[in-house]
Amino acid sequence: MKILVLHGPNLNLLGRREPEIYGAMSLEAINQKLAERAAKAGVELEIIQSNHEGVLVDALHGAADRVQGVIINPAALTHYSIALRDAIASLQVPVVEVHLSNIYAREDFRHRSVLAPVVWGQITGLGPLGYILALEALLAREEYNP
Amino acid sequence: MKILVLHGPNLNLLGRREPEIYGAMSLEAINQKLAERAAKAGVELEIIQSNHEGVLVDALHGAADRVQGVIINPAALTHYSIALRDAIASLQVPVVEVHLSNIYAREDFRHRSVLAPVVWGQITGLGPLGYILALEALLAREEYNP
Amino acid sequence: MKILVLHGPNLNLLGRREPEIYGAMSLEAINQKLAERAAKAGVELEIIQSNHEGVLVDALHGAADRVQGVIINPAALTHYSIALRDAIASLQVPVVEVHLSNIYAREDFRHRSVLAPVVWGQITGLGPLGYILALEALLAREEYNP
Amino acid sequence: MKILVLHGPNLNLLGRREPEIYGAMSLEAINQKLAERAAKAGVELEIIQSNHEGVLVDALHGAADRVQGVIINPAALTHYSIALRDAIASLQVPVVEVHLSNIYAREDFRHRSVLAPVVWGQITGLGPLGYILALEALLAREEYNP
Amino acid sequence: MKILVLHGPNLNLLGRREPEIYGAMSLEAINQKLAERAAKAGVELEIIQSNHEGVLVDALHGAADRVQGVIINPAALTHYSIALRDAIASLQVPVVEVHLSNIYAREDFRHRSVLAPVVWGQITGLGPLGYILALEALLAREEYNP
Amino acid sequence: MKILVLHGPNLNLLGRREPEIYGAMSLEAINQKLAERAAKAGVELEIIQSNHEGVLVDALHGAADRVQGVIINPAALTHYSIALRDAIASLQVPVVEVHLSNIYAREDFRHRSVLAPVVWGQITGLGPLGYILALEALLAREEYNP
Amino acid sequence: MKILVLHGPNLNLLGRREPEIYGAMSLEAINQKLAERAAKAGVELEIIQSNHEGVLVDALHGAADRVQGVIINPAALTHYSIALRDAIASLQVPVVEVHLSNIYAREDFRHRSVLAPVVWGQITGLGPLGYILALEALLAREEYNP
Amino acid sequence: MKILVLHGPNLNLLGRREPEIYGAMSLEAINQKLAERAAKAGVELEIIQSNHEGVLVDALHGAADRVQGVIINPAALTHYSIALRDAIASLQVPVVEVHLSNIYAREDFRHRSVLAPVVWGQITGLGPLGYILALEALLAREEYNP
Amino acid sequence: MKILVLHGPNLNLLGRREPEIYGAMSLEAINQKLAERAAKAGVELEIIQSNHEGVLVDALHGAADRVQGVIINPAALTHYSIALRDAIASLQVPVVEVHLSNIYAREDFRHRSVLAPVVWGQITGLGPLGYILALEALLAREEYNP
Amino acid sequence: MKILVLHGPNLNLLGRREPEIYGAMSLEAINQKLAERAAKAGVELEIIQSNHEGVLVDALHGAADRVQGVIINPAALTHYSIALRDAIASLQVPVVEVHLSNIYAREDFRHRSVLAPVVWGQITGLGPLGYILALEALLAREEYNP
Amino acid sequence: MKILVLHGPNLNLLGRREPEIYGAMSLEAINQKLAERAAKAGVELEIIQSNHEGVLVDALHGAADRVQGVIINPAALTHYSIALRDAIASLQVPVVEVHLSNIYAREDFRHRSVLAPVVWGQITGLGPLGYILALEALLAREEYNP
Amino acid sequence: MKILVLHGPNLNLLGRREPEIYGAMSLEAINQKLAERAAKAGVELEIIQSNHEGVLVDALHGAADRVQGVIINPAALTHYSIALRDAIASLQVPVVEVHLSNIYAREDFRHRSVLAPVVWGQITGLGPLGYILALEALLAREEYNP
Repeated sequence: MKILVLHGPNLNLLGRREPEIYGAMSLEAINQKLAERAAKAGVELEIIQSNHEGVLVDALHGAADRVQGVIINPAALTHYSIALRDAIASLQVPVVEVHLSNIYAREDFRHRSVLAPVVWGQITGLGPLGYILALEALLAREEYNP
Repeated sequence: MKILVLHGPNLNLLGRREPEIYGAMSLEAINQKLAERAAKAGVELEIIQSNHEGVLVDALHGAADRVQGVIINPAALTHYSIALRDAIASLQVPVVEVHLSNIYAREDFRHRSVLAPVVWGQITGLGPLGYILALEALLAREEYNP
Repeated sequence: MKILVLHGPNLNLLGRREPEIYGAMSLEAINQKLAERAAKAGVELEIIQSNHEGVLVDALHGAADRVQGVIINPAALTHYSIALRDAIASLQVPVVEVHLSNIYAREDFRHRSVLAPVVWGQITGLGPLGYILALEALLAREEYNP
Repeated sequence: MKILVLHGPNLNLLGRREPEIYGAMSLEAINQKLAERAAKAGVELEIIQSNHEGVLVDALHGAADRVQGVIINPAALTHYSIALRDAIASLQVPVVEVHLSNIYAREDFRHRSVLAPVVWGQITGLGPLGYILALEALLAREEYNP
Repeated sequence: MKILVLHGPNLNLLGRREPEIYGAMSLEAINQKLAERAAKAGVELEIIQSNHEGVLVDALHGAADRVQGVIINPAALTHYSIALRDAIASLQVPVVEVHLSNIYAREDFRHRSVLAPVVWGQITGLGPLGYILALEALLAREEYNP
Repeated sequence: MKILVLHGPNLNLLGRREPEIYGAMSLEAINQKLAERAAKAGVELEIIQSNHEGVLVDALHGAADRVQGVIINPAALTHYSIALRDAIASLQVPVVEVHLSNIYAREDFRHRSVLAPVVWGQITGLGPLGYILALEALLAREEYNP
Repeated sequence: MKILVLHGPNLNLLGRREPEIYGAMSLEAINQKLAERAAKAGVELEIIQSNHEGVLVDALHGAADRVQGVIINPAALTHYSIALRDAIASLQVPVVEVHLSNIYAREDFRHRSVLAPVVWGQITGLGPLGYILALEALLAREEYNP
Repeated sequence: MKILVLHGPNLNLLGRREPEIYGAMSLEAINQKLAERAAKAGVELEIIQSNHEGVLVDALHGAADRVQGVIINPAALTHYSIALRDAIASLQVPVVEVHLSNIYAREDFRHRSVLAPVVWGQITGLGPLGYILALEALLAREEYNP
Repeated sequence: MKILVLHGPNLNLLGRREPEIYGAMSLEAINQKLAERAAKAGVELEIIQSNHEGVLVDALHGAADRVQGVIINPAALTHYSIALRDAIASLQVPVVEVHLSNIYAREDFRHRSVLAPVVWGQITGLGPLGYILALEALLAREEYNP
Repeated sequence: MKILVLHGPNLNLLGRREPEIYGAMSLEAINQKLAERAAKAGVELEIIQSNHEGVLVDALHGAADRVQGVIINPAALTHYSIALRDAIASLQVPVVEVHLSNIYAREDFRHRSVLAPVVWGQITGLGPLGYILALEALLAREEYNP
Repeated sequence: MKILVLHGPNLNLLGRREPEIYGAMSLEAINQKLAERAAKAGVELEIIQSNHEGVLVDALHGAADRVQGVIINPAALTHYSIALRDAIASLQVPVVEVHLSNIYAREDFRHRSVLAPVVWGQITGLGPLGYILALEALLAREEYNP
Repeated sequence: MKILVLHGPNLNLLGRREPEIYGAMSLEAINQKLAERAAKAGVELEIIQSNHEGVLVDALHGAADRVQGVIINPAALTHYSIALRDAIASLQVPVVEVHLSNIYAREDFRHRSVLAPVVWGQITGLGPLGYILALEALLAREEYNP
């Protein structure tokens, strides 16, 4: 089994950027946590961070042929990227949307996700744990949806 | 004569992505059809597909100096790319907007094109043929507007 | 192969009526252009212009048995003829709706087409070329939807 | 006694057109059912189907002189034909409006009948039975309104 | 000089239909009155009554080439025939709109004429005389607008 | 036979006041035209122009006893004189309301006639001819309503 | 003691004008009734009917010097004559407003009296009795307001 | 030079009517003041007070031929006389609107002048002096607008 | 007798600033005109122009003790200076508010005078003459309010 | 300890200006009362009244260096002087806003204080006592906020 | 060349007042910086700070005759001084509006500048540098707008 | 010292695209001007123009490590790029937002900058000078914020 992990714009700055909002853990540390959990489950990860909407769309396009699930934190693109939405809608594998902070508890313009209607599920506001839970969800999916 | 053909985000998935909406023909097949028609008319095509708004804007910028017409399917960008709108508004050559599906018969957020007010015409809902027709329109334009 | 071409009310006046909106080309000239294109493709045309809603509905009814496609410019009936809509909805052959001018850029009462939700596609704002393109669309349809 | 039966636009397609909405029984079959019931009552029928608003209006005009009741399914004209309404309003004989499908349970634009205020009664959504019931109503009218 | 007189749907019933609203004079009698008045003025009349919108549109189309004025009682079509409106808008000769009853003193849906913005003048509520007066208006027009 | 002709406030200024709205013909010229037509018909005219609502009401009161019809252009009073309306409503003789300009095509406060619901008919937008036509209407009324 | 009785526009027609609304009793009869009641009380009456707003205003102006009370039926002026309102407001003697019909139960435009705020009282909808009661009110006023 | 001075309804009561609003000076005194001032300037005055709208309209009609300016206190008519407005609009000489009390500081229905849009200027709230000042304005107009 | 004349902010620019709105006459010329008129009446003027709200308030405070009337053109302060309003409200001497242009015919934010409810009167739209008339008003006040 | 007391526009008129609103006590008397209370507490007062927004702003500017508290009655400036607000906001010493009348119980435009959000507290509607209480507040502040 | 620099209310406190918003640099230091820059360019400065709206208006009035550009930080007056707006609108020289803090990122009432529509440009949120930049803009204006 | 200069989508077209809005100076000329100014200050510039949101975000990310300030004209992205906003918010170096035209004076959809709340300052409406001034701001920043 293989999982694609996508980190959207500005997430490469994690740990350095506004830690009071996004937490002190770096993206590398999060990826490390994810890798450990994946290893335990015998799952391979493909991890991509990009500030380009187009790169994220590109990555999703090939996903169907090589992964069995997707974890995506679309970051700022959450709120306006219909292109990302369409790319996700075209996938046959389950997609979990992750947000480190609770987007519903921040500025108004962050309350609306244009992706939400086409993902399998969304985990919001639990910090880096959100990623781990998204991975657990994909791992346990079969068991709960036989 | 030379024509620029622009395919927006996710259109590289054509034939594989939601075929009940976008049809079964691949982008390569569409481009091949366009090429054949163009060859017959002694017209050169410059075809670009990109999931990057910026690549599409770049392509439009040089267009005025090297092409006599533009065919663009802005896909998801139809609904929010003011950058694409500004790029089209700066062109002197005719631009035909193409949509594979009928955008007026889908979700509400797809009903509004921020580009429509600055294109020459729009072809909606005829599938891949819309591209060929847009090409015909550009080829025959002189004849009908002497 | 045979195609039905329907011109709605007042289109027999083309070239004479408000040319700044509808253009200077007469309906005869448009039909001649259509005939030439059809002849080249070995396709027979059945062309009807009528100011009678009933004649247009009648023509559509028999269409399924004798034509493989329909081109219709419903003109004023676009905005209120539910009978025409129901007739189109009952057809199994593809119907292309054509408008010479961009109906979305004129008086408010012309913005809404009661037919649009039941046609195959719509070509708006490209002048007489719209008819030729509609014909091309029907001719090439098989090829693109094998 | 003689009864006029009017079938509006597109009803000649019954059985072939969208059977999930209008049912699988053809107009001929319905007319046959009506004829059988009429024969039993010793009543003569005059049956007309037309896609022309004008033909239906014409038929209603002579009705007063030769029939004692009218059954009309105005189909699409239900929603905008004030001409049909005026023709009905001019009659002295009872008129029953019939709809095969429940027009109040379909698209919004089908909810309003401009004829309803000037007919004797309306039967909606009972399928072909509606016609038979309309005939029964006209037959029993005297008895209930002595 | 020649004048076109158009009578819309149901006007053939005049004298028989709701005489308390439309008066007791038949359409034939009205036409006879018009003919007498026209003969006196050495004017030829072309009189058409139709319950078909299309017939009225047809008659208006040739009008510009053969008449110097039009009298039209659009009857029920007053309130929804954009086709009739477009036909009148395309004419160069003066058009007088006539209503037998006062449309502003009846049901709400009769208060709005979609034709009024494109006619020369309107005569309302004077019964059959409205036609004669419309003829007088066309005859005397030159004298009053030298 | 005798006809009362009432001209409302400011109509004595006709030909001098805002001719682009009311035309270049003076009230005297209009009255002369009316007198000639009346003489031909052996009809006596009683012509009153007044800027006094009360004078117009008085004139209407006696009318029933000495005239067989009334022509009234209420001018500015059209829009607020309920006294004039009540006076007209009390008459047994026919009243024709005349407007030189099309009141429905001017300022909003001129669109509503408080008299219209109680007159026999209204002639709008045909200039001075409106008066002559109103006279013709009264002369011919008997003939048309035997 | 002397009382001024004012009858507004069209009231001279009482008994002849729309008796189903205003009753069958003539103004003369009403005045006779009033005179009888006044004589019994040893009160002198001054009775004026006018269709001129100005005449009624004039009559009110002198009233203060020669009468001890006013009965006024302003008729149509009730609804727009601020001039009459101002004239009443300038008086020192009590004024009773009378309406034969119930103005609140008729057309909307008759619901509002611009005079009501400046009269002593209003009697509405009791027919000719309203005048008698108004007289009684003025006679008994002292007794109830010592 | 000659000036027309118009006093509207109820102004003949000045000095006696609600002096706390309109002041203690009689209309005669005001006219006398105006006459003295006019005499000093060698100007002739034509002074008219009327409770009749029609008399005021009449006076305005002849004005253009015999006076060089108009002073008008429309009183109650300020708020509803479209006839007065039309009469002023037809004049070529300057008109000054005068109000004894400040109409903007009284009841709501007195805040709107239907005449204001067609006068030269307005003097409000200075009592009888407003008239004198209006006269001064007309006398000095040339000097200030050479 | 002494009169205080207050000119508000920017009025020192008169004749130079936007003359199409405020006229071509300079403040000096206006003051000269005022001085001449005052001299003739044996009246002393105290003329202050200030762009300072406080200076205008100060000037008003002492006014009661040394002048018998105030002329004020509050200019821009008309619309927001409650301090000026309170100062005027505290005075026992008459205050006349003057506006060169008709403030009710300009931008919305200039339509409301916060001072109007507390002045004696207002002169609007008569240009520089407004000041002279205000002076006349104060000179003649005693005479008219003995 | 030293306290700055600021009296805004028009407060120099206290006792003379609208005593029914502001009371009969003069500003001098109020200042005297304050001085007595201050003397008892061994506190020095600096008292300034000005009708100039600028002077009050100036006075506040130096305050921080020489006083330990401010009492201000901003009068009319309460409602629009953001300049005064900013000056108060820049101070480090406590400021008490005083109003003699209850501003919330007067005209609407007096309900809003633009200063209130930046003062320590506000005392409204207690008459001259408000000043004394403000002084007490400043004196007792330490005790209640140790 | 000469430039007028205007500092509005409270700006004399700069460096001492809310330094977290307005910065630590004193007005003197800013003026010194401006003077040095101006000296280098051979430009003369006229610098005025005032807490008085009137002083600022005064300064602007003479400006047209003695300076070639204006730099203004209207401070609190930005939001209500129509007097300042009128003074700027009357100038022919370019005016640059400067704000030390970003007014669009503060309280709502600071978001709207009543001056903005009549200035050349606006520099917001750069602290004291805004002034220097405004000076540079005026110095370089010719070069960039030849 | 090093400064990052970011030009957003379509700005490479400057001088050629809609010069009546954006001016006649090319981006190269603007960059040349910036380079000259920077050279004089011994400052290195890194200039990037991109039509790619992602490229601009990338450039901003590395900025903190290699530049001491950022100048950004976000062009069309001003109105929807939350990714750009988040990237700016994550920076520790000062960012100046520049607009050639006054965005507050154009189409409604251009009035709102989603970046403004997170930049150091904004320069609007001064044309190409805005860039130079932004550079000056960054150069002088230290000096003004020691």
